[in-house]
Amino acid sequence: MTEKPISRFPVPELPDMPEDIRARILGLQEKAGFVPNVFLALAHRPDEFRAFFAYHDALMERDSRLTKAEREMIVVATSGANQCQYCVVAHGAILRIRARDPLIADQVATNYRKADIRPRQRAMLDFAMKVSRSAETVDEADFAVLAEHGFDREDVWDIGAIAAFFALSNRFANMVSLRPNDEFYLMGRLPKA
Amino acid sequence: MTEKPISRFPVPELPDMPEDIRARILGLQEKAGFVPNVFLALAHRPDEFRAFFAYHDALMERDSRLTKAEREMIVVATSGANQCQYCVVAHGAILRIRARDPLIADQVATNYRKADIRPRQRAMLDFAMKVSRSAETVDEADFAVLAEHGFDREDVWDIGAIAAFFALSNRFANMVSLRPNDEFYLMGRLPKA
Amino acid sequence: MTEKPISRFPVPELPDMPEDIRARILGLQEKAGFVPNVFLALAHRPDEFRAFFAYHDALMERDSRLTKAEREMIVVATSGANQCQYCVVAHGAILRIRARDPLIADQVATNYRKADIRPRQRAMLDFAMKVSRSAETVDEADFAVLAEHGFDREDVWDIGAIAAFFALSNRFANMVSLRPNDEFYLMGRLPKA
Amino acid sequence: MTEKPISRFPVPELPDMPEDIRARILGLQEKAGFVPNVFLALAHRPDEFRAFFAYHDALMERDSRLTKAEREMIVVATSGANQCQYCVVAHGAILRIRARDPLIADQVATNYRKADIRPRQRAMLDFAMKVSRSAETVDEADFAVLAEHGFDREDVWDIGAIAAFFALSNRFANMVSLRPNDEFYLMGRLPKA
Amino acid sequence: MTEKPISRFPVPELPDMPEDIRARILGLQEKAGFVPNVFLALAHRPDEFRAFFAYHDALMERDSRLTKAEREMIVVATSGANQCQYCVVAHGAILRIRARDPLIADQVATNYRKADIRPRQRAMLDFAMKVSRSAETVDEADFAVLAEHGFDREDVWDIGAIAAFFALSNRFANMVSLRPNDEFYLMGRLPKA
Amino acid sequence: MTEKPISRFPVPELPDMPEDIRARILGLQEKAGFVPNVFLALAHRPDEFRAFFAYHDALMERDSRLTKAEREMIVVATSGANQCQYCVVAHGAILRIRARDPLIADQVATNYRKADIRPRQRAMLDFAMKVSRSAETVDEADFAVLAEHGFDREDVWDIGAIAAFFALSNRFANMVSLRPNDEFYLMGRLPKA
Repeated sequence: MTEKPISRFPVPELPDMPEDIRARILGLQEKAGFVPNVFLALAHRPDEFRAFFAYHDALMERDSRLTKAEREMIVVATSGANQCQYCVVAHGAILRIRARDPLIADQVATNYRKADIRPRQRAMLDFAMKVSRSAETVDEADFAVLAEHGFDREDVWDIGAIAAFFALSNRFANMVSLRPNDEFYLMGRLPKA
Repeated sequence: MTEKPISRFPVPELPDMPEDIRARILGLQEKAGFVPNVFLALAHRPDEFRAFFAYHDALMERDSRLTKAEREMIVVATSGANQCQYCVVAHGAILRIRARDPLIADQVATNYRKADIRPRQRAMLDFAMKVSRSAETVDEADFAVLAEHGFDREDVWDIGAIAAFFALSNRFANMVSLRPNDEFYLMGRLPKA
Repeated sequence: MTEKPISRFPVPELPDMPEDIRARILGLQEKAGFVPNVFLALAHRPDEFRAFFAYHDALMERDSRLTKAEREMIVVATSGANQCQYCVVAHGAILRIRARDPLIADQVATNYRKADIRPRQRAMLDFAMKVSRSAETVDEADFAVLAEHGFDREDVWDIGAIAAFFALSNRFANMVSLRPNDEFYLMGRLPKA
Repeated sequence: MTEKPISRFPVPELPDMPEDIRARILGLQEKAGFVPNVFLALAHRPDEFRAFFAYHDALMERDSRLTKAEREMIVVATSGANQCQYCVVAHGAILRIRARDPLIADQVATNYRKADIRPRQRAMLDFAMKVSRSAETVDEADFAVLAEHGFDREDVWDIGAIAAFFALSNRFANMVSLRPNDEFYLMGRLPKA
Repeated sequence: MTEKPISRFPVPELPDMPEDIRARILGLQEKAGFVPNVFLALAHRPDEFRAFFAYHDALMERDSRLTKAEREMIVVATSGANQCQYCVVAHGAILRIRARDPLIADQVATNYRKADIRPRQRAMLDFAMKVSRSAETVDEADFAVLAEHGFDREDVWDIGAIAAFFALSNRFANMVSLRPNDEFYLMGRLPKA
Repeated sequence: MTEKPISRFPVPELPDMPEDIRARILGLQEKAGFVPNVFLALAHRPDEFRAFFAYHDALMERDSRLTKAEREMIVVATSGANQCQYCVVAHGAILRIRARDPLIADQVATNYRKADIRPRQRAMLDFAMKVSRSAETVDEADFAVLAEHGFDREDVWDIGAIAAFFALSNRFANMVSLRPNDEFYLMGRLPKA
């Protein structure tokens, strides 16, 4: 286990956390075997912790026509462009697991245009990158391209809203210098025994 | 009242909104005399509405050493750089009111380096812009500069977290093409009678 | 009246100005009730003053198929992109008056793609922005797009020449740190009594 | 003589020009042996012609502490950055002649940081490039650096104003696709017999 | 084994390759158990193959004061910035092995400023990135910073020459759409049994 | 002969060079009357010298459907964009000679879009610039455009490989601050007697 700091800011001890936050963290520990550092770093600010994960879950756990793997592709592609180490490493792991593909995350993080994805997913990531990097130029023509690939308005909201949420998340992680847990690096890279 | 659409996405009618959301919107109507369009556009997605405003309030309403006017300066400067019409117009109005200064918002939105602000506020905005536009390069030297201006670690979190939150907000508003309410343009420009 | 400096450079007193420049300035004072600071700052260099305003008038006062409001839209959009506080505030005021629209200037300055303008005006501003920000890539295809919107060659010259002139003006204003007169901020925002 | 068009816009015949413009052009023909194309292209708009050259002469012919060669360095460096073929070729010729140096123009146009110039001239060009490319960030620290190199406020105005004027000129030339006269390419490259 | 194409261009069969190239490729097959795709793609052009690997070996195999791991850090950091999927995946594997560190490659590829490296290595990568992304601004001040970290002129040549060589390599790989071998993704991630 | 340094690094004397390198340099001296400085600067590292010129010759001397003048156009256009003084001046001279055109090099170096070249050459340079400046976005659509202009896959490799090689060369020259020989500036500008 690394002794390196996980945040530039103070990280509270479990007993000092509000009950609901401690409960969520203990649940993660039990389920995953470790606590992703973003939970610990944000516990420094309980109200922001609650809003952040409520927002995250509203987008990433909702009943959507985007698969969970596709949503993670959006996270990994935009986080790569924003040079967010925590998000690329942690969500890269989740993407590998969701997509059951050990190669996809490194491909999408480095250059999604060359990843093993379908044309529909390529169009999805083109739009996500536009929202992430030059949202001021989004216009109706973008919606038309997505419609050609079968995305309806709700799907487009999902794509754009995830890209927008991780624009926040990437900046937060870079500001606090959030360290990815060592556990993430290998997750999803080996075939299940 | 304008007849122009306020969002590219469906906007629910008041009776169709969940109770808590309708209540907040009616409260705004009563207090301000109109409902800022971001509330109506986000009501299309109740869970995202709740998380968005919980996050907003956690940052903008919390007990902080940054004044409320200073927090709005961060919003206006970064939203100007991100070309977010809704955020510049709506938060420009709030900034004028909070700062009791009819000129400050237009100055900060266009080029904060030439605004009528104090050196401490200039340093605050330099950091906010860095988080907003190139967070991957934030490092300890930035924290040292802010410390020289009397900002402690909690203040820095506040500055960076507000810049990060509005990175989300700017992208959301540009994606949905959120229209600023006509009422905002003149707010805070006239001396109180 | 503000006591803040209007320029980084010396500003001459009226009695020390050449007769033609003093006359123009006194005429402005009489007509508008105040003297826009760009006249005072440029009076430091009489020959440049004369050439600057001769150029300005040749473009902005000429008999053109572009309306005066459209010409001001070009100024405001490109000055916003160039972060020129003086030009956005001063010409924003003139645009509101010329267009008889209290909202248009803030819209165009922040993100002209979302302003309440016609498709023809959108094409005009797309070209103006290209001349302002990446003129090296202008080619015949741009002229063809403008022709589709009914702009002839003389109109295109007008659009491009205004964008080019304010590329100069924006840089001059930023170099001298030209301060907008307080009077501009509210002009054109209130209905005529 | 090339048969290639010198401008995307109509170029008037000498007899159709106003007297003062025809006189200036004939004077150039007599003195230089050819008429630089910028005079012919701008003759399409007499008022703009007069203002442009009045401005040009006010900056480039005035009694300044910058040598004429130094002023041309500013033109060539900023025009290179703006990819203005006419300005680089035409003012490159003038720079070679003013500086009596056949190498200097190609050096400054490509990468002024590696040109055979003095540290004082390097500082001058650093500031000119800042005005040309990111004037919104000019601040007092830039003036301090220039002062260390012996530039007073009037010198700084000269540097910045020339960079600003050629920001206009570069954009105009790129918009009209102004063709450099063939004569410029070789001027100043050969030792005087 | 994937059936996906490894290059947009024809890839020769082993029997059709010149003897020296076939020998090198068979040697790699024997030693590593697979042939990195860059060898197969470049075999399409034998002379370029020979020059490319002669250059590569001259830099990466030479007796240098930079460790082999440090040289691979330069490759991975600059290839990440240039969005070169092949180089990040293949050299990421080599970096993990050379550095005996399963985490280092993903850290350096995404944001080297936050990687587990020493200040000396951070300075090395800052310079490599400058050569890779804005070499036109390299100047003596950069050499002075590197000297403070103990790098002599030969070391600086090594850093810069590796960054320059992979500027070529990244562009070649993106042009031919070079596919990383599946084997690279997991290499160096597991402890040796 | 200039006394100015030609490289930031040591340049070996002829007697201290390996025999093959000395022979190539003496051959150049005999043929051209002077030794281009890139040979002298690279002689500091014999293995890199050999690989560099083997690569150069493989691309620039090979039997290709691109004329030698066209290959030099690629070098000059991309080197201009990369602000490489040595490459623009030296290869500008070669381009003038290969194309038997005294104007072409200055045109292509400053803004190739306005050079006296054919549409096919314009398409060639558009692709070369894309490889040089944003290779991560190259895709099949680029190949289709080139095919419309009659370029087959081997031609495209040639264009892209030359752009990639000079991405290396430009960075090397800027890192070592390679000085162009004075002789290059005038070469190819005068009609043959």
